[in-house]
Amino acid sequence: MRERSYALATDLYELTMAAAYFENQMNHPATFEVFVRWMPPNRSYLVAAGLAQVIEYLLELRFSYRDLEFLRRLPVFRHASDAFFDYLSEFRFRGDVWAMPEGTIFFPNEPILRITAPIIEAQILETYVLAYLNFESAIASKAARIVDAARGRAIIEFGARRAHGMEAALYAARAAYIGGCIGTSNVEAGYLFGIPIYGTAAHSWNMAFPDELDAFRAYLRVFPETTILLIDTYDTLQGARKATALGPVVRGVRLDSGDLATLSKQVRAILDEAGMTETKIIASGDLDEYKIAELLEHGAPIDIFGVGTQLSTSYDAPTLGGVYKLVEEEVDGRILYKIKLSTEKATYPGRKQVWRRTDAEGCFLSDVIALADEPPPPDAFPLLEEIMRGGRLVTSLPTLEEIRERAAENVRRLPEAYRRLKGAAEYPVSRSERLEELRQQVITELQGV
Amino acid sequence: MRERSYALATDLYELTMAAAYFENQMNHPATFEVFVRWMPPNRSYLVAAGLAQVIEYLLELRFSYRDLEFLRRLPVFRHASDAFFDYLSEFRFRGDVWAMPEGTIFFPNEPILRITAPIIEAQILETYVLAYLNFESAIASKAARIVDAARGRAIIEFGARRAHGMEAALYAARAAYIGGCIGTSNVEAGYLFGIPIYGTAAHSWNMAFPDELDAFRAYLRVFPETTILLIDTYDTLQGARKATALGPVVRGVRLDSGDLATLSKQVRAILDEAGMTETKIIASGDLDEYKIAELLEHGAPIDIFGVGTQLSTSYDAPTLGGVYKLVEEEVDGRILYKIKLSTEKATYPGRKQVWRRTDAEGCFLSDVIALADEPPPPDAFPLLEEIMRGGRLVTSLPTLEEIRERAAENVRRLPEAYRRLKGAAEYPVSRSERLEELRQQVITELQGV
Repeated sequence: MRERSYALATDLYELTMAAAYFENQMNHPATFEVFVRWMPPNRSYLVAAGLAQVIEYLLELRFSYRDLEFLRRLPVFRHASDAFFDYLSEFRFRGDVWAMPEGTIFFPNEPILRITAPIIEAQILETYVLAYLNFESAIASKAARIVDAARGRAIIEFGARRAHGMEAALYAARAAYIGGCIGTSNVEAGYLFGIPIYGTAAHSWNMAFPDELDAFRAYLRVFPETTILLIDTYDTLQGARKATALGPVVRGVRLDSGDLATLSKQVRAILDEAGMTETKIIASGDLDEYKIAELLEHGAPIDIFGVGTQLSTSYDAPTLGGVYKLVEEEVDGRILYKIKLSTEKATYPGRKQVWRRTDAEGCFLSDVIALADEPPPPDAFPLLEEIMRGGRLVTSLPTLEEIRERAAENVRRLPEAYRRLKGAAEYPVSRSERLEELRQQVITELQGV
Repeated sequence: MRERSYALATDLYELTMAAAYFENQMNHPATFEVFVRWMPPNRSYLVAAGLAQVIEYLLELRFSYRDLEFLRRLPVFRHASDAFFDYLSEFRFRGDVWAMPEGTIFFPNEPILRITAPIIEAQILETYVLAYLNFESAIASKAARIVDAARGRAIIEFGARRAHGMEAALYAARAAYIGGCIGTSNVEAGYLFGIPIYGTAAHSWNMAFPDELDAFRAYLRVFPETTILLIDTYDTLQGARKATALGPVVRGVRLDSGDLATLSKQVRAILDEAGMTETKIIASGDLDEYKIAELLEHGAPIDIFGVGTQLSTSYDAPTLGGVYKLVEEEVDGRILYKIKLSTEKATYPGRKQVWRRTDAEGCFLSDVIALADEPPPPDAFPLLEEIMRGGRLVTSLPTLEEIRERAAENVRRLPEAYRRLKGAAEYPVSRSERLEELRQQVITELQGV
């Protein structure tokens, strides 16, 4: 098989539009913004993630000879000129990027990324940029809910086997860590991003021995300081009793099935009675934020939750509907404001900034979406920061730890009313007067045409 | 950033178990099977996909020096011996694989893949194998439903921007094509897999011109044979009328918002009146199998549906819960049958084959899960085929076109009662007497312990 291609990882229409712009001698500056139209079901806030992957793409995107040969032979491009392929062969992203830093909480209609570049450049990026922002933000948002529901107990992301392939598993682990998980089971995520990696054992380990206790002993021999025993292969309580034969050196036991609230209490009692008060209880098995909240309400003495499928696919809302919309162009030195009027998919014109108002303690009160050149509202700070200018980074990107800390701080500053798992209040987001006026003005002009 | 690593794209516990087997001198042959426990919501059959990615992985998996250096330095491996890392440096998959060919329809509890290999080899593969089978089968299954609902109208996969990153987009396009889509918008999927690629234009193209008709004309100039106009940027019916100014050379018009049933009829009338009877109507905008069925029931004259988010993420069931379970081991020439008794997660012992009964016309009647060495039931054919022996391919893998044809043929042979979008009958799957007896026998032995 051929190797994968960064440049071809896009929708065909981005490239046909690029050709059409090129052949029509149009390559004036244009500004596009990324935003989510609606809050997905079961979410009351979103956590921005994926920007690092977008920046890497913008810095590295090139069309190879191989890419161009493939495109040239597509029937759709039979009328495209050699000059167009020459243009692509020299292609580099040379635009400006403003974005919410990863880990920022955001809401529908708020631009989380704004790109200003010659329109061909800006167009070609759309598919890739959306894919990573939509995906990683979906997972980081789900993770933040799960971590919040666990009220200080630890969450480990376990879901590689249910992710959308191993690249998705990798970025799901990254986004889950941003959202507050303490680590992942995914070794590659440790290797590439330095995320703490965790592992216990599978049922197959226990099943490979005639006797479960022999399986436990054999594991402990190899991992004397870090053994976590999986005790539900045959009978959880008998498994727990067998674990006590090994004593306090056992770091933890994992329960993966059954009534976790009841079993965790019984297992805790068995362990404590054997003097294994430091041995942790880890629970897993199709958990999500609701089940974790319920377990904690029932007083389940679970120290660590392993969450897989529900987290790594954001099962109940497996993507965000982020879109990439043209908001203005500059033609012959004039700014032209752009909107779309399609039913239920209307957009707002102009480059925007999002301002967040806080109270004296720094808690988030409300957001205002304004035009980028409006004066700051009082007691508010801007969410979009300048990241690239003329195709170059103008800021040093935060480390993953800093991103994770930002997300945690953002969640702490979001009042509890907006964080409830069910029936959360809707966080107030409004638009500035000038933005509303500009939109009316553009509509009037369009209808005049 | 470091480059990605095939070998580290796994859960840590696969590697800690590998170390534990190794240090305990256990590397006897073991057999694992992959199966889905429950039918996901809103599905009545599943379509196998992802095997090609699994086979590629099995053939190419190696631990590089870099991989091993990373693992050696992990605290969890501080007691692992040099001999273990030497073992990994020589690692190759040398096992046997049986599997349902891609495109085969399957049901819960049926093994879709069976691996027999020294237990360390078989264990290490688990995470990767499950990730691709779960993901691609989920998407192929969703695609088959959508294609079936479209009753012969064409479906194009459009969802890269909502996929879980661009690798997920690539394999989603592949699985969607297996499930019966006519193509994808994803250029890389065309490049790597030869899948037909399609593209229209985005709203930004139309918005980049002061007048919509100018935008239409400019596009047609560059793509005189293949132009599909997006006509809903401002007003769909006005957009359709403007399209008629260009005449029958316009290949198609796309509607992306509003009441598609009503609008498609009005647009059809406008086009037909202008003599553009050959100009196709393409519809998109958060479509799924239910919306497509409803549009067709209302007689919407839509020729092609572009389906994105719902298809590329299998939104209503974004993964399958496929598991990888130990079913037997061979120790000192003796077969040991293995089961797990965990509540609701119990398993069946022994290597299995799945037999499918058909009627005289070849329609699928029912399946039987049996032990692999049982004689074939009458009028039945086996679903699992031998793919690899001793780490080598023993069959030539089908082309993507052959896989797609198999899926289409399988869906045709599945009676309509099992294919209804809502309220489908449950396809009958039973277990052979010998399999049930063997399980009872193993339970008795375990309880005797």
